[in-house]
Amino acid sequence: MAEVVSNKQVILKEYVTGFPKESDLQVTTSTIQLNIPQDCNNGLLVKNLYLSCDPYMRTRMANRQIQGYVGSFQLGSEISGYGVSKVIESAHPNFKTGDLIWGITGWEEYSLITKTEALFKIEDTDLPLSYYTGILGMPGLTAYGGFFELCSPKEGEYVFVSAASGAVGQLVGQFAKLSGCYVVGSAGTQEKVDLLKNKFGFDEAFNYKEEEDLNAALKRYFPKGIDIYFENVGGKMLDAVLLNMRKNGRISVCGLISQYNLEQPQGIYCLGQLILKSIRMQGFLAFDFYHLYPKFLEMILPKIRQGKIVYVEDKAQGLENGAAALVGLFSGRNVGKQLIVIANA
Amino acid sequence: MAEVVSNKQVILKEYVTGFPKESDLQVTTSTIQLNIPQDCNNGLLVKNLYLSCDPYMRTRMANRQIQGYVGSFQLGSEISGYGVSKVIESAHPNFKTGDLIWGITGWEEYSLITKTEALFKIEDTDLPLSYYTGILGMPGLTAYGGFFELCSPKEGEYVFVSAASGAVGQLVGQFAKLSGCYVVGSAGTQEKVDLLKNKFGFDEAFNYKEEEDLNAALKRYFPKGIDIYFENVGGKMLDAVLLNMRKNGRISVCGLISQYNLEQPQGIYCLGQLILKSIRMQGFLAFDFYHLYPKFLEMILPKIRQGKIVYVEDKAQGLENGAAALVGLFSGRNVGKQLIVIANA
Repeated sequence: MAEVVSNKQVILKEYVTGFPKESDLQVTTSTIQLNIPQDCNNGLLVKNLYLSCDPYMRTRMANRQIQGYVGSFQLGSEISGYGVSKVIESAHPNFKTGDLIWGITGWEEYSLITKTEALFKIEDTDLPLSYYTGILGMPGLTAYGGFFELCSPKEGEYVFVSAASGAVGQLVGQFAKLSGCYVVGSAGTQEKVDLLKNKFGFDEAFNYKEEEDLNAALKRYFPKGIDIYFENVGGKMLDAVLLNMRKNGRISVCGLISQYNLEQPQGIYCLGQLILKSIRMQGFLAFDFYHLYPKFLEMILPKIRQGKIVYVEDKAQGLENGAAALVGLFSGRNVGKQLIVIANA
Repeated sequence: MAEVVSNKQVILKEYVTGFPKESDLQVTTSTIQLNIPQDCNNGLLVKNLYLSCDPYMRTRMANRQIQGYVGSFQLGSEISGYGVSKVIESAHPNFKTGDLIWGITGWEEYSLITKTEALFKIEDTDLPLSYYTGILGMPGLTAYGGFFELCSPKEGEYVFVSAASGAVGQLVGQFAKLSGCYVVGSAGTQEKVDLLKNKFGFDEAFNYKEEEDLNAALKRYFPKGIDIYFENVGGKMLDAVLLNMRKNGRISVCGLISQYNLEQPQGIYCLGQLILKSIRMQGFLAFDFYHLYPKFLEMILPKIRQGKIVYVEDKAQGLENGAAALVGLFSGRNVGKQLIVIANA
């Protein structure tokens, strides 16, 4: 008979419309049997160590099916997302007890993972394990694929990044500098603006909340226009950027966080610029670049070890603080990559 | 002393806001000296044969400077656009008297062309010369570059073309069929819908004016979704298409004719689909593909001669009917490529 232990979980209490509130989520305690059921081929029983708070999770908190996307969370069940976990028991040939993995897991202390197609075994453990929710995980791969693969940066080009101090943005800025580009970032507080300039090496940064006219702000920072825009926010910022793009500009559409809590998204009015400047706009999901993960690691691991790329994390402690951490993404409360610490390896 | 002849011209009388009216243009008669002034190096004196009516000309009829684009027409001066002309006198080493050319010329009987960088000499004269305002000119190159270069069509893919019976659309549909794609076109009259199906070989076609719900219409014609959208119209059609795109879809943004007469363009609300389906949207100008013109001719000339590609033109007679022809583009009065016949070679 396997051990039965208590299992703290974060469950979805209400489907969300508008801005998510902490009270839409609830911490409950359930129990879990610490073995893998007989009929669960390839399953993994894991202890969760770190959970990732990502803006895309907002779409799963709404009660709607989105074609081609992961579905809504189940009301009354634990939510799920990217995380770092330790394998307690494995029925999967590629994983064994004691392995560290990253991928989709539950927001709870222990999880039985049955969808194992998109799990990665963590081989390099000399760096902080929490990095596998960020720079070495999905956000890192997102920044890498969205910037290098889709935007093909060239030395001397002008790059703009919105939500630039976030999990993805801080990396895009550093990738741009490593590529010899001029890079400007926008963020929502002075603290984040300072971080962009002093920690991540952006050439310039500004607080978009203090700019009445985003078009004028961009003209100030990009008198010659923008070659590459890494889009994390959407809405009015996108229209302002479109007006300031240069001929043959590229826009990597990674996220539209300003729109996720609106029942009706804002209209975009300046798409005529795509024609006038022969602009390419490309949307993507991190999943599109999963096959590049080994190549990505090969590039980034030495750069982290040599201190040529840095990463700022915002760590909430415990599942009790999970709801606040997740909801805080949408008011910009986090400084750097938001994650939750559940346990240490 | 050179001959001085009378020169009928179409001049811009009023800068346009909203829908252009025939009365915004006016036919006047000026005179022109039939030789090239001493100081006009590389100039050409031409007799204009055919003039092309193109939607982009609307932007030049407004009183505003658009960055990166050709400027506004001069009030009180003849307007200009693509045309087919015969060289009367040449100060340019690449052209001689009697040559036939296509490129930007004036809306008048005779023109002194001083900007000669983007003129093409017509070598193949066994086909109708008027084709060099359409299938063998800028619209042809636009369809070719926008479809083959930007959309990389694959056999069996689902293609949608808006404004499908126009100068560019009718070619995109035929290119799609030659590529083994399934292609549906939209147009604004039953006559055009019939043309798409019976003359150009579209698999299906519909009258967008008779569809209350464009999203539902596209779902009917594309139950499996759209791989490639060749965008000529913008506005509500673009939003409906975005909702129906498939994973890794491509949108070639050629024109947004539904928006050109609005003082404030309509908002686009469904760009979140770019992320969910990893869609690429690419704007362009015909100019981007000028270097491919020889390759394009090599492809299309034999296909026209063999009857494998057909082309429908809508010919207005004389400069007196030029204003009506140009303005008619925006109400969809033309059936096929709209051009004006000034004189025969």
